[in-house]
Amino acid sequence: MNNTFGTHVTLTLFGESHGPEIGCVIDGLRPGLKVDEDWIAHSLSLRRPAGAISTARVEPDPFRIVSGVYRGRTTGTPLCILIPNRDVKIGDYVNLANTPRPGHADYAGAVKYQGCNDPRGGGHFSGRLTAPLVAAGAIFLAALAERGVRVGTHLARCAGVADRPFGDLAADLDALDRAVFPVLDPEQGKKMKAAVLAAAAAGDSVGGVLETAVLGMPAGLGAPWFDTVEGLLSHALFSIPAVKGVEFGDGFALAEMKGSEANDPFRMEKGRVVTESNRSGGINGGLSNGMPLLFRTAVKPTPSIALPQRTVDLAAATETEIRIQGRHDPCIAPRACVVQTAVTAHVLLDLLEAL
Amino acid sequence: MNNTFGTHVTLTLFGESHGPEIGCVIDGLRPGLKVDEDWIAHSLSLRRPAGAISTARVEPDPFRIVSGVYRGRTTGTPLCILIPNRDVKIGDYVNLANTPRPGHADYAGAVKYQGCNDPRGGGHFSGRLTAPLVAAGAIFLAALAERGVRVGTHLARCAGVADRPFGDLAADLDALDRAVFPVLDPEQGKKMKAAVLAAAAAGDSVGGVLETAVLGMPAGLGAPWFDTVEGLLSHALFSIPAVKGVEFGDGFALAEMKGSEANDPFRMEKGRVVTESNRSGGINGGLSNGMPLLFRTAVKPTPSIALPQRTVDLAAATETEIRIQGRHDPCIAPRACVVQTAVTAHVLLDLLEAL
Amino acid sequence: MNNTFGTHVTLTLFGESHGPEIGCVIDGLRPGLKVDEDWIAHSLSLRRPAGAISTARVEPDPFRIVSGVYRGRTTGTPLCILIPNRDVKIGDYVNLANTPRPGHADYAGAVKYQGCNDPRGGGHFSGRLTAPLVAAGAIFLAALAERGVRVGTHLARCAGVADRPFGDLAADLDALDRAVFPVLDPEQGKKMKAAVLAAAAAGDSVGGVLETAVLGMPAGLGAPWFDTVEGLLSHALFSIPAVKGVEFGDGFALAEMKGSEANDPFRMEKGRVVTESNRSGGINGGLSNGMPLLFRTAVKPTPSIALPQRTVDLAAATETEIRIQGRHDPCIAPRACVVQTAVTAHVLLDLLEAL
Amino acid sequence: MNNTFGTHVTLTLFGESHGPEIGCVIDGLRPGLKVDEDWIAHSLSLRRPAGAISTARVEPDPFRIVSGVYRGRTTGTPLCILIPNRDVKIGDYVNLANTPRPGHADYAGAVKYQGCNDPRGGGHFSGRLTAPLVAAGAIFLAALAERGVRVGTHLARCAGVADRPFGDLAADLDALDRAVFPVLDPEQGKKMKAAVLAAAAAGDSVGGVLETAVLGMPAGLGAPWFDTVEGLLSHALFSIPAVKGVEFGDGFALAEMKGSEANDPFRMEKGRVVTESNRSGGINGGLSNGMPLLFRTAVKPTPSIALPQRTVDLAAATETEIRIQGRHDPCIAPRACVVQTAVTAHVLLDLLEAL
Repeated sequence: MNNTFGTHVTLTLFGESHGPEIGCVIDGLRPGLKVDEDWIAHSLSLRRPAGAISTARVEPDPFRIVSGVYRGRTTGTPLCILIPNRDVKIGDYVNLANTPRPGHADYAGAVKYQGCNDPRGGGHFSGRLTAPLVAAGAIFLAALAERGVRVGTHLARCAGVADRPFGDLAADLDALDRAVFPVLDPEQGKKMKAAVLAAAAAGDSVGGVLETAVLGMPAGLGAPWFDTVEGLLSHALFSIPAVKGVEFGDGFALAEMKGSEANDPFRMEKGRVVTESNRSGGINGGLSNGMPLLFRTAVKPTPSIALPQRTVDLAAATETEIRIQGRHDPCIAPRACVVQTAVTAHVLLDLLEAL
Repeated sequence: MNNTFGTHVTLTLFGESHGPEIGCVIDGLRPGLKVDEDWIAHSLSLRRPAGAISTARVEPDPFRIVSGVYRGRTTGTPLCILIPNRDVKIGDYVNLANTPRPGHADYAGAVKYQGCNDPRGGGHFSGRLTAPLVAAGAIFLAALAERGVRVGTHLARCAGVADRPFGDLAADLDALDRAVFPVLDPEQGKKMKAAVLAAAAAGDSVGGVLETAVLGMPAGLGAPWFDTVEGLLSHALFSIPAVKGVEFGDGFALAEMKGSEANDPFRMEKGRVVTESNRSGGINGGLSNGMPLLFRTAVKPTPSIALPQRTVDLAAATETEIRIQGRHDPCIAPRACVVQTAVTAHVLLDLLEAL
Repeated sequence: MNNTFGTHVTLTLFGESHGPEIGCVIDGLRPGLKVDEDWIAHSLSLRRPAGAISTARVEPDPFRIVSGVYRGRTTGTPLCILIPNRDVKIGDYVNLANTPRPGHADYAGAVKYQGCNDPRGGGHFSGRLTAPLVAAGAIFLAALAERGVRVGTHLARCAGVADRPFGDLAADLDALDRAVFPVLDPEQGKKMKAAVLAAAAAGDSVGGVLETAVLGMPAGLGAPWFDTVEGLLSHALFSIPAVKGVEFGDGFALAEMKGSEANDPFRMEKGRVVTESNRSGGINGGLSNGMPLLFRTAVKPTPSIALPQRTVDLAAATETEIRIQGRHDPCIAPRACVVQTAVTAHVLLDLLEAL
Repeated sequence: MNNTFGTHVTLTLFGESHGPEIGCVIDGLRPGLKVDEDWIAHSLSLRRPAGAISTARVEPDPFRIVSGVYRGRTTGTPLCILIPNRDVKIGDYVNLANTPRPGHADYAGAVKYQGCNDPRGGGHFSGRLTAPLVAAGAIFLAALAERGVRVGTHLARCAGVADRPFGDLAADLDALDRAVFPVLDPEQGKKMKAAVLAAAAAGDSVGGVLETAVLGMPAGLGAPWFDTVEGLLSHALFSIPAVKGVEFGDGFALAEMKGSEANDPFRMEKGRVVTESNRSGGINGGLSNGMPLLFRTAVKPTPSIALPQRTVDLAAATETEIRIQGRHDPCIAPRACVVQTAVTAHVLLDLLEAL
């Protein structure tokens, strides 16, 4: 139960928000895969604050690949990516060690690590650790693209505003690859930003729903028990900070349907077995069925808010109040889209390597 | 990516619906745990069809423990449970091999196993395989009880009817331990059964929402990345046939809240740190925070329905129609509650053994 | 750290010597592999006592495959093999629970399992558990044969008598497939048997050296660190009861050589890269190099001997003496050959599935 | 089957001999363990060339801990150690890519990694990768010391010269902690060095036997099947470059003994169960029995020798001859002792964490 995930393609994550470097080790990649550092840098840029609605802490996220790549291609040996931390203001955080922030891991983390973990900026719990996840995801996406598999995530809902649903998937995934703000309908995106800014102005924060589509997954991946496609994906997706729910296909809405509505009838299309509807999100009995994978996650509002909050003083065992200082993102949902895509790419590549 | 789950306490599942026996191997149990065969039998009885609303295939589910127990206590070596299959009508199923049932794993399974898997009654995909899961769960629950941890699952919604929410958890878990139909409000249970029967009479089926509560989990279990409490639980929960969504605490509703609403303020209670609300379902940053765990799953309607359905003939590569014969449960959600409790008990025991 | 081994093809072992059944679950097998029950029975017969030199406890070892096989072929789902225990004389063993037998796991096992493990006949530690290993091995060998890989083990030394070394490997492996007593030179086999009987007549026991050859392994399997071919094989081989040493190629003799003697020069043979000598046992840098794998294990003498031995009374914390009653094999080395072949086949198949 | 080892305490190794940095990630360490950088530096110094008998490539092995340590103590989160590569002469190696060196992984590695791996200095196969193993080992040894477990390795044989056997273990382990050349008898050490230099002068190399003793291991660790103490240790030990054999206790000599000689009688000593002899090396039935662990590995002679050797040209598929240029160690066995201690410490700590 350590910081390594995956069976064939494994990812090991390390680092603390305010340590010298954070990073990851990717192992089990096929040799010979082209590694495009510009594409990694582009992916990292999507995780960075998106203009007015994100924290003012701007990090250019330079990265170094220190192993596993030779002459621009993967060697097949472990690939380590390092990302230095910069622009750290230590004074913002140190007074929080004894007063756990509501909605954060501070209290549970102090219990787990017996008070020894680095409290600065959330330490190893920090959302900053998603930077190496995204860098790794860029490599996984490239490996998937070689096999004809594409992944994209949009902000399906944010601050009460809904994006349009996925339509022509190939075109929508193209658009998401280029989108700075991950929505399919830019007008809705503007409304979302405005709603986020309104919440921020009130010292508050908002959440959202992230929807991912996967095109090109072959049928027959996954397993009937335990390593179902849903189980593997959800296992990984709950590592995205603030995700509190995952649903596949029509998800919770299926619980309200009749079987005759919920079942996706099979039919032939150009000699291929397809389903007419895709209420199951491309998964039957834990296995991919060859249709696009579709799933959504619920992202809770950022727990760091400017408003005063009630908490306890762990040292004194008394109740107290905190006001969280520093730069905080009133809504991490837009930035979480690229993280969700990265985490999804890892699971899918791992499933493909199991063939 | 095989049929084994868990890190410290592992469960390996085997068998086919129409093979001679199905079963499981549990490994990593502490030696000396009392094994109560009556309690296992009681748990298995809750998985069996519940009167009029379930399939007419009645199985007394006798079981044998063939290893790992000596003089009524666990030895600490692998514990194998075998459950014979009985009352099998082979003729009901064989004609389905080439016409995959919508909503079932037939098509995806034929691709994965290259047409070699046992198609009778769903084979290894059959919900019948949840019987050994439940038997194992009874043992896990006993191990948890020794450590003061209790688990219970009720049918929060079924066929459009809602049960009352959890209230006094200790009392509610007591009631669920004894309940034949797993609801907190028996009046609502009656309405659910009526609605299920109405759907069945129309040749159709319905789903539901299952809600689990866990009392007594210590704080600090889980991990910040990958092996989060949510990730581990959801990984296992999606093995329950027909589960298509999982949400923790307020789940998808959190995505619509402000941070000031969603955060659970900390306070002291009898010298212990607690939270005032429990919107996070007892989990912060992937770790248990000492509050009750709370989560819900979405169970889709049983895909086996009497109504005719469109599908394909895999051998002829043409479109066709099927009518599923045989005995099928118009709603598996009530029977799935004990399965959800079992699967949850496994993950929690595994987390506790990681300490 | 449980009773499951393997990454892609996993084997889970369960059972106690005097329980109702012992068995194993094999998972990760490719679908469609022909399962020949006669071949499994033949393999099991090689593990049974070999005439005068083995224990009088004769077990026909009937077995049942209860899952994972449909119409004579693997389904790709978990394959469970059950072997009932018979001919058990309980009285032979029960008095041993408090007086650990020297050279046995009795004392260490009582500590590990806190006195809860089944002491009868060694319980889960019993060499009897190698029966399901051998049954599984028969299936692994068939899977290897489909890929052109063959495995065989001979008794290179026993009771001070040496068999001839491997020569023409294909012919030698053919001969070992049919051999009741696993030697290449039957005359040496007769001398071994006589030496074993002489030791038995003196109330004593002997050990031996087992040598395995593998033909047809492709180059490039294994890994540079941790999952080296040597590391994976040795990990499994030390599960064979009484094995206390493993050496690959020239093994310990290499420690006495010069580099110019120890290195195997490369040369071309029919367009293939081969080595002239094979002092490395077909493994360079932890990877197979395409030459035959060759390795030896040291099997200590059976610890159960008729002679009186000094031990302690765990309950009284005093010193005492035991005389081990019952039927015991004065040399398990001949019967261990088929176990070594089985265990080797598992590791090799797992390595091939990692490609 | 990747570059991660361990169940509870995991070690992930990455890097190439001539890349910018090599390193490792340690996960699963308890929080609060004191991390002494001087002790790590001392351990690394023992791996460096030992005077005249080692390669002239001198590396000060500076290292950086970039995560998992806060205020001098482990946090409980992943601990990443980075070691930069320096003093690299690229020209020495590049011409070897097509002419595999006998006794090296060049050929097998080119097959496994499809020609994509970094060939410079052995790349990821390089003995240089043992530096992060040793750094990690220093941390593991400190964690073991807190639990009263000590580990030490001496050069039992080298170039035909034998060191004296272990005697008073506590004193011998003290001496080995301080020894620059890892022998118990310094006079024998001088003879070894002279014999190594004689081989080097002849353009050749030699090997040796490394013997490890462990003091303070509690009884009952390990498992009866698969994760035996022998199996886990040997799995890791074969990662030490050039190790080709492992034996526990009297090892291969046991194969020549009678049971009455090989069995270690139990007796009481100050209320503790001990054995009179320790021919089993402290392990019975795969479990530690509370006596000191004792085992030996066979290290083959360094394959890089100055003498001309026959090999093939992989591009031309012809036979050819190479003379290996550059700085090479005529005997790595002395430097391998600290690596063996490190690898052993990892396995033992992992076993202790399984309790």
